[in-house]
Amino acid sequence: MDCVFCKIIAGEIPCSKVYEDQNLLAFMDINPLAEFHTLVIPKKHIEFLWDCPSEISSALGEALPKISRAVQKASASDGCNVLNNNASAAGQVVPHIHFHIIPRFENDGVFTEWPAKQLPVEKVQQAADKIKVLIDS
Amino acid sequence: MDCVFCKIIAGEIPCSKVYEDQNLLAFMDINPLAEFHTLVIPKKHIEFLWDCPSEISSALGEALPKISRAVQKASASDGCNVLNNNASAAGQVVPHIHFHIIPRFENDGVFTEWPAKQLPVEKVQQAADKIKVLIDS
Ligand SMILES: [Zn+2]
Ligand SMILES: [Zn+2]
Repeated sequence: MDCVFCKIIAGEIPCSKVYEDQNLLAFMDINPLAEFHTLVIPKKHIEFLWDCPSEISSALGEALPKISRAVQKASASDGCNVLNNNASAAGQVVPHIHFHIIPRFENDGVFTEWPAKQLPVEKVQQAADKIKVLIDS
Repeated sequence: MDCVFCKIIAGEIPCSKVYEDQNLLAFMDINPLAEFHTLVIPKKHIEFLWDCPSEISSALGEALPKISRAVQKASASDGCNVLNNNASAAGQVVPHIHFHIIPRFENDGVFTEWPAKQLPVEKVQQAADKIKVLIDS
């Protein structure tokens, strides 16, 4: 397995660890968007969030407030983004689920884009119906 | 409470719902970054993720793979961003926790920025130590 996060979990590559439990590891991003930029990952190698079993994803969900609270306090930031990118089209670089916790400051210029669109109401409702059927099935 | 998401939960403002359980509601973003852009919110009014109690955040974590899987299939996208913005500095507009699920396609131009920095190793380790102490306390 040539996965840099699995190597970090195995102790083969060092990291600056901030949290660990039986399911999860959190450590500093070495290419940070801001000081205190932290990653939270499952110990199990899973590439995409949509393939994550519920016992692991609930553990991730449970840990994110606790870790983001500490990142927030440590960085004295104005806010944070909690971001999970799935697939290269979405900016995923390491093929192992990770949540970025990115401290943000007013006008820090880290993310400035939010290219919202207007879609016809019927089209939005059709999209909802399509998703709903897939969730229910 | 003048919160648009609480009004959606109360049924005072309509939405295109895709999922609901005792803790959570998921519905279409009306200012989407892409078709099938979905929001997942707790029913309880909580402004920031770092204030979210663990029973609700674990429910959020548990639901995200299931909902993102359906969004992914419905949109036939190449990937997705799962994004939670906390505070206006981080782009939060509605003061009620929400996770965006944003379908992504190669070169769709939705998010193009990733202004990574290089920080001195000692500085990163100091940040980790500061966060770790706060998590442990
Ligand atoms: Zn891995
Ligand atoms: Zn609310």
